[in-house]
Amino acid sequence: MKKIVALGELLLRLSTKDYLKFSQVNEFNADFGGSELNVLTSIAKFGLPVEFITRLPKNDIGESALMEMNKYKVGTGHIPMGGDRLGIYFLEKGASIRGSKIVYDRAHSSFSTIQKGMIDWKEVFKDANWFHWSGITPGVSQEAADVCMEAIEVANEMGLTVSTDFNYRANLWKYGKTPQEIMEPMVAKCHVVLAGDYASKQYFDIDPEGTTEKELLISLCEKLRNRFSSIQKIAITNRGSISASHNTWSAVLHDGTTLHESESYNITHIVDRIGAGDSFMGALIYGLNTYDDATALNFAVAASCLKHTIYGDANLVSKEEVENLMGGDQSGRVQR
Amino acid sequence: MKKIVALGELLLRLSTKDYLKFSQVNEFNADFGGSELNVLTSIAKFGLPVEFITRLPKNDIGESALMEMNKYKVGTGHIPMGGDRLGIYFLEKGASIRGSKIVYDRAHSSFSTIQKGMIDWKEVFKDANWFHWSGITPGVSQEAADVCMEAIEVANEMGLTVSTDFNYRANLWKYGKTPQEIMEPMVAKCHVVLAGDYASKQYFDIDPEGTTEKELLISLCEKLRNRFSSIQKIAITNRGSISASHNTWSAVLHDGTTLHESESYNITHIVDRIGAGDSFMGALIYGLNTYDDATALNFAVAASCLKHTIYGDANLVSKEEVENLMGGDQSGRVQR
Amino acid sequence: MKKIVALGELLLRLSTKDYLKFSQVNEFNADFGGSELNVLTSIAKFGLPVEFITRLPKNDIGESALMEMNKYKVGTGHIPMGGDRLGIYFLEKGASIRGSKIVYDRAHSSFSTIQKGMIDWKEVFKDANWFHWSGITPGVSQEAADVCMEAIEVANEMGLTVSTDFNYRANLWKYGKTPQEIMEPMVAKCHVVLAGDYASKQYFDIDPEGTTEKELLISLCEKLRNRFSSIQKIAITNRGSISASHNTWSAVLHDGTTLHESESYNITHIVDRIGAGDSFMGALIYGLNTYDDATALNFAVAASCLKHTIYGDANLVSKEEVENLMGGDQSGRVQR
Amino acid sequence: MKKIVALGELLLRLSTKDYLKFSQVNEFNADFGGSELNVLTSIAKFGLPVEFITRLPKNDIGESALMEMNKYKVGTGHIPMGGDRLGIYFLEKGASIRGSKIVYDRAHSSFSTIQKGMIDWKEVFKDANWFHWSGITPGVSQEAADVCMEAIEVANEMGLTVSTDFNYRANLWKYGKTPQEIMEPMVAKCHVVLAGDYASKQYFDIDPEGTTEKELLISLCEKLRNRFSSIQKIAITNRGSISASHNTWSAVLHDGTTLHESESYNITHIVDRIGAGDSFMGALIYGLNTYDDATALNFAVAASCLKHTIYGDANLVSKEEVENLMGGDQSGRVQR
Amino acid sequence: MKKIVALGELLLRLSTKDYLKFSQVNEFNADFGGSELNVLTSIAKFGLPVEFITRLPKNDIGESALMEMNKYKVGTGHIPMGGDRLGIYFLEKGASIRGSKIVYDRAHSSFSTIQKGMIDWKEVFKDANWFHWSGITPGVSQEAADVCMEAIEVANEMGLTVSTDFNYRANLWKYGKTPQEIMEPMVAKCHVVLAGDYASKQYFDIDPEGTTEKELLISLCEKLRNRFSSIQKIAITNRGSISASHNTWSAVLHDGTTLHESESYNITHIVDRIGAGDSFMGALIYGLNTYDDATALNFAVAASCLKHTIYGDANLVSKEEVENLMGGDQSGRVQR
Amino acid sequence: MKKIVALGELLLRLSTKDYLKFSQVNEFNADFGGSELNVLTSIAKFGLPVEFITRLPKNDIGESALMEMNKYKVGTGHIPMGGDRLGIYFLEKGASIRGSKIVYDRAHSSFSTIQKGMIDWKEVFKDANWFHWSGITPGVSQEAADVCMEAIEVANEMGLTVSTDFNYRANLWKYGKTPQEIMEPMVAKCHVVLAGDYASKQYFDIDPEGTTEKELLISLCEKLRNRFSSIQKIAITNRGSISASHNTWSAVLHDGTTLHESESYNITHIVDRIGAGDSFMGALIYGLNTYDDATALNFAVAASCLKHTIYGDANLVSKEEVENLMGGDQSGRVQR
Repeated sequence: MKKIVALGELLLRLSTKDYLKFSQVNEFNADFGGSELNVLTSIAKFGLPVEFITRLPKNDIGESALMEMNKYKVGTGHIPMGGDRLGIYFLEKGASIRGSKIVYDRAHSSFSTIQKGMIDWKEVFKDANWFHWSGITPGVSQEAADVCMEAIEVANEMGLTVSTDFNYRANLWKYGKTPQEIMEPMVAKCHVVLAGDYASKQYFDIDPEGTTEKELLISLCEKLRNRFSSIQKIAITNRGSISASHNTWSAVLHDGTTLHESESYNITHIVDRIGAGDSFMGALIYGLNTYDDATALNFAVAASCLKHTIYGDANLVSKEEVENLMGGDQSGRVQR
Repeated sequence: MKKIVALGELLLRLSTKDYLKFSQVNEFNADFGGSELNVLTSIAKFGLPVEFITRLPKNDIGESALMEMNKYKVGTGHIPMGGDRLGIYFLEKGASIRGSKIVYDRAHSSFSTIQKGMIDWKEVFKDANWFHWSGITPGVSQEAADVCMEAIEVANEMGLTVSTDFNYRANLWKYGKTPQEIMEPMVAKCHVVLAGDYASKQYFDIDPEGTTEKELLISLCEKLRNRFSSIQKIAITNRGSISASHNTWSAVLHDGTTLHESESYNITHIVDRIGAGDSFMGALIYGLNTYDDATALNFAVAASCLKHTIYGDANLVSKEEVENLMGGDQSGRVQR
Repeated sequence: MKKIVALGELLLRLSTKDYLKFSQVNEFNADFGGSELNVLTSIAKFGLPVEFITRLPKNDIGESALMEMNKYKVGTGHIPMGGDRLGIYFLEKGASIRGSKIVYDRAHSSFSTIQKGMIDWKEVFKDANWFHWSGITPGVSQEAADVCMEAIEVANEMGLTVSTDFNYRANLWKYGKTPQEIMEPMVAKCHVVLAGDYASKQYFDIDPEGTTEKELLISLCEKLRNRFSSIQKIAITNRGSISASHNTWSAVLHDGTTLHESESYNITHIVDRIGAGDSFMGALIYGLNTYDDATALNFAVAASCLKHTIYGDANLVSKEEVENLMGGDQSGRVQR
Repeated sequence: MKKIVALGELLLRLSTKDYLKFSQVNEFNADFGGSELNVLTSIAKFGLPVEFITRLPKNDIGESALMEMNKYKVGTGHIPMGGDRLGIYFLEKGASIRGSKIVYDRAHSSFSTIQKGMIDWKEVFKDANWFHWSGITPGVSQEAADVCMEAIEVANEMGLTVSTDFNYRANLWKYGKTPQEIMEPMVAKCHVVLAGDYASKQYFDIDPEGTTEKELLISLCEKLRNRFSSIQKIAITNRGSISASHNTWSAVLHDGTTLHESESYNITHIVDRIGAGDSFMGALIYGLNTYDDATALNFAVAASCLKHTIYGDANLVSKEEVENLMGGDQSGRVQR
Repeated sequence: MKKIVALGELLLRLSTKDYLKFSQVNEFNADFGGSELNVLTSIAKFGLPVEFITRLPKNDIGESALMEMNKYKVGTGHIPMGGDRLGIYFLEKGASIRGSKIVYDRAHSSFSTIQKGMIDWKEVFKDANWFHWSGITPGVSQEAADVCMEAIEVANEMGLTVSTDFNYRANLWKYGKTPQEIMEPMVAKCHVVLAGDYASKQYFDIDPEGTTEKELLISLCEKLRNRFSSIQKIAITNRGSISASHNTWSAVLHDGTTLHESESYNITHIVDRIGAGDSFMGALIYGLNTYDDATALNFAVAASCLKHTIYGDANLVSKEEVENLMGGDQSGRVQR
Repeated sequence: MKKIVALGELLLRLSTKDYLKFSQVNEFNADFGGSELNVLTSIAKFGLPVEFITRLPKNDIGESALMEMNKYKVGTGHIPMGGDRLGIYFLEKGASIRGSKIVYDRAHSSFSTIQKGMIDWKEVFKDANWFHWSGITPGVSQEAADVCMEAIEVANEMGLTVSTDFNYRANLWKYGKTPQEIMEPMVAKCHVVLAGDYASKQYFDIDPEGTTEKELLISLCEKLRNRFSSIQKIAITNRGSISASHNTWSAVLHDGTTLHESESYNITHIVDRIGAGDSFMGALIYGLNTYDDATALNFAVAASCLKHTIYGDANLVSKEEVENLMGGDQSGRVQR
């Protein structure tokens, strides 16, 4: 089996327990996460080899992050240790009508100081068939964007499939470049895209046209495809936010000709929705390496649906759990 | 800005974790609360200066209560320390079809032994424009009722607005007086009232008339206003209890001529509904000091709606969080 | 009051907290449970004397189990200590669309090595009027089945009512006998049965006939009654699994002539559904000793409905709480 | 085996975790304790039947206290439920040079309102051979003192051994009587006494004479014996407080002619020293019912030495653990 | 009473529980601390008004820090909110022969970006008589050093006493200036100094001379005084590190003519030694405002000795607790 | 670098928190351990590649054990999954004069059913230079002993160094063979031995001769060497048990001619002494692969000394921490 490789920032997640407000706590749950890492952790759980490229500080906190990746069989053999600090995000878990709140403390992170030339991409991609990145990575710093472009180029040269999740974050992109000038050439070398209308507007000023939901989705896919000829498949997830504890969840996958539509799930009593998009991306990559497109989509939606019941950034469900849900069992019965 | 002052009992709240029954636990969460204090904590979070008058025992538990009030910027500069003990309530948190259960252990509290003359109300009210009390305060003891009447009278003399929350508690009023004989002269000097049909019946034998819900509400307001000419505004909250975890919530405000009706909220996955009425009262007082009546009502309903997602007695949401919900966003989306 | 006696295995339950996956935890909640014990704990909470017969290892874990039974007034005076180990089950608590997962580690347990002659059933049943067992007990080992048959026979001789819960578990019955050959003679001496169509099919190859749900239920009861003439009453519970956090719950009781049907409850925000069937059985036994059949059924359904809100294997609600729910109050209001 | 009976107050103990100060915590460990109950719990762990007489409020907190006594096989069959509240003590656990701090909240407790005639002592003492009380009991209220005297008299009539622990508490004795006038006639009917020089001075104005420690101890015993002819055995414990985490511990037992002296233990890394005196008393009562005087003393000292390593009010060590320490093994080696 | 003012950085402290290694935890205790804040918290606990000047980010973490200061009555009225982030330090608590380990993550903090002119020192010092800073403050950044110098100058102009704790930290001082060039002019305007031989060497290349410990101490004091004529009093603490759990602790105070020497304490079973030096400084400032020099020294040593038993950065003991220890009671007896 | 391989049983460790007795807890800490695994985890932390051979059940508990080994970089690539269950040990942590207590529940484990031929030892040892086992492994079952012998033989053939830790456990060896008949031929093919006089007596009836401690040690080493000519180095640790919280610790290493003696450490405030012997063995293997004999011994003693401060079965200290202690710094100072 060939490896899936991703590049991105790993963050320390400090979250309040039991829906407490920041001012009520004197302890934080401490976990590690980050969009691209979450994607890989999902894939590793499903059984494919994966490797993560990031930069971590050379201290005990960086070491702990390495150990956590070891635990979930995420390869860490090419991470250049160094820099000042691990980025952090503080999470106040919401419930019901009160949404979760994130306070970022990721400025000046080790990852933001990664440099071109630090990674021997030829070596990294030797046994790999896929490279994944998200819009967060180039949003962190010029250096991170440069390394990401460097990876995309080597990946294309070596014939890997390149995927991206648009993942637009308004509070990034602070280093003097617009998202559009950075993203345009990068997306132009990608084959699989997890898009979204808001991000497509922010990055590329694309406005889908149509009156029905479906027409709008198809229009968005076509406009992206017209802009970026490299793109082969476009996925779009659809979250209906009824409350912080109750969402609906579905997705589509456009393969150039057909718009595959997934089942729509009703998810109440949500445990943790952070990382749901990443779990979709991870399961989609796994699926596209394993199934036909329609099945890959359904696998990805079912997997990410289950993510809403898993604490933490990463989806820790097994392939069997996902397939059971795909098979139609949403009953939540006790498995003995 | 002028201060909001309140008089009432502060209780130590000992609650079970994770919906456990009393017989299952060997630890309690320990927090401080009490109807009038909860009102002030809300107001302080919104940014107005507040001061709480109560009586606390001169020991480490009383000191801890003071520190907790400091934390939330509730003024404690005029609290006469002394007496035997801090009142306690034990809370077994319910869920679903099982309601929460409260065991009171508040007899013989320090607050029940507060005495007329202990508080220099003229001094306390110097920079204040509002005095609040609830029906719990005079229900505790003759002494507490006397001090409350003393405060109401000075407040009226000094031109403060006086508000009350009827808050009828059947397990109080054990010192030989009927609620009616005590409450009648006190409510007669109040300007803003948080009423309710059950409490109005218990205290004043008032039966609203009408066939529709709205007619009954208007009737109740008119009867109260006829009985107590001082009253300028009457608010009434309306809780629909579908289960311990699912309620509906709305309120009305009658200003003498108009019955303002709030939006009605559907609140599932309730975190903690204790103190929701107090959070309404606090936000209403804040609102009446800040907005027009209709907005004040909507602010109060939205604030108290959010209280159902906050652990503890007091509402710790910010003005921005309330205004966001008032603006219509009930989606509970993650705020980054 | 006469005692209710039961025979069965007591297990150590090791469960993850807060819906975490097994791989995420470094601590387990530790509780004791087991189908027949859960039945007795319920009954003891309602006020009848009970006694449990099992086998426990002679070590500190076995001692702790004894103490837990003491706590809930479950008699332990005739338990033959010995054998290798306490059976264990690991529980990964699910939520929403992800069901709970149980990993059994009960092989080679002390209970599986109980022997005929270890229990002086005449002595045990001296002050008793009821003996209860479930299909789990004979499924554990030939020895456990033999002791169960021994108890059933003495109970019949001494005029006790004998009840059973079919409780079919596919992962038991590994000692070389089919469930049918073992269960047939045992059920043939029972008077009250908690049945179910799946278990009836597995144990006795019974297929109910009919088109409506009610016809099927009556058919099942009649077929069981035709097969086992000793049976006087048959109860069947009906769980609708909408998700791991949302179920519907009702039951019927057939007394030979009439099919009593209970109210149906809608239970959202489930806290812990393990042991709900046992809590039904316990409340039914209590009810049949206390009320008429229809009331007993309603009591049992209301009690087991409340079990879904109680952490742990056993139902710890009081008779008053059940009667309050039977009386129609599902509002979950705070009880002060 | 005959029962050991004791009369006293049961308190809810709310303690801070991990040596935190009261102002640092938002949760308390919750346990039950009380001098005379602690004595009985020890004895029950060693295997003798025991019964506790107290008064508990008729609420869920009182019920939980009953269940805890059930757990440790402390008989509760004659407890008159009623009164306002369970007494509480708050415990701030100290370490090193900072001692633990106790804040009492026991005024107006249910036990303080126990009344003569509530207990049928003849019935209680039917199968008993020993009655124990401590100086705390009559210090609580006139009513408690009356009931204690009532019990002592019936115990003497019925030929039980009566033991007392002087246990002087300066913050009790607030009901208008001096300790001396109350204690004098009560101690005059006791046979076994756990005394101490400070308490003997406070209660009876006794000043031991002598120059060596041993002379002083013998003098104290003789003066007590001269004052109270009923006394057969006097025990005195000796704690050397090097710090909150490091004590020395020994005791003597005077049987009228001989002063038995125990081994002296050096106890560092103390886990919880609350209740050590009670554990001594419990083990002494057990020892005097089981061994000769010298062995009883050594058993009691070893048992109470181990108590310093047990969290909570009560000593939960087994007879085997005590005998192992008596045998000289203080090594704390791992027992596999 | 006049205020004590301090300037410094406030850090979020994230510590492992129960002596766990960083790699073993998935939660951190979260507290706030910082050398100069710790000094003020101590003083506030003893009863003097205090005010802290720092810079905090304008987010929920900064707000929580403000609330914590409110709780302990540390004034926060002049803190300019802004900047990127709150500095963090990770603490792995050691025990026995393994020392605690700190990982700093304080680069790019809000405090490091404080600017001259942000603080109206005339206003801040209006009701103050004392200004305190430590060597950490100018070590953070040029900007912090500038603001500190600004404060020292205004304080001198307005006649305040200025104190400093040398507090040399090798991992600071990274902005291109040597500690010596920065510290020299600042210490030259100080009146009370907490010095140390290592810091004196690092900052000012001072080598004390002499053969006995006392000669060396006196030499150090004289050399400092010769170098900085403003200095009136020099304190030096002396820690003997036997293990992470066992230290000795004493101090001296040189007033220009006399070297006062404190009692030496033996502290085993240390709970938390972080902040002990700060607690000494705080108690010394309180003492010098309250007692004579010798008593101030003894108060400071006793207070900081107790700090070793208090979890967290700040010393939360009361004046009574300190005076009790000063009075010679190191027994750690239970205070009832 | 060549791999270190070990064969042994992996156990789930369920331990009580905070020195609580088994009967006091309703939760257990859950960790994984086992003598030979602990050895490897230590070595992996120091930086050498390691691989563990065991058998684990094919369920979520077995999977979690695999993940934990991944985390610490213990290779798991050749583990044959299967069998009934993971062995468990329950640990009641003692303190002071009360030792820790272990209750084993390891009968019928997956490891006890490992079979000859399941492991391709040639493949496993391909990149290895060392094989380690302990006396626990053959004590578990005949099958485990057979597999261990199989490994020893292949290791000898392939020129690996073979080490063993005698590790005598009285509660194993229940399958009908004496320890001596099994151990004799196995030890006869070992090169490095961690011995002990008690185990040497139990296994081989060896009685050392001499009067001084040193003579006895040399005698034991010589007798072992005379019996087993393959042995090149013998290590013996020496624990002085002053209490459960205070031990002394040292060791010797005999290389055939010289008896190297280590420094002796005084360890108070022990956090967790389980696995100290294993940590010695691990550090010794690392040391013998890295240093000369005398340094290896000192490294091993210092490392295992630090183990007493680390929670859990395995030693998680780094090489730097060990070398710092070897260098003489036992002060436990804070490392910033």
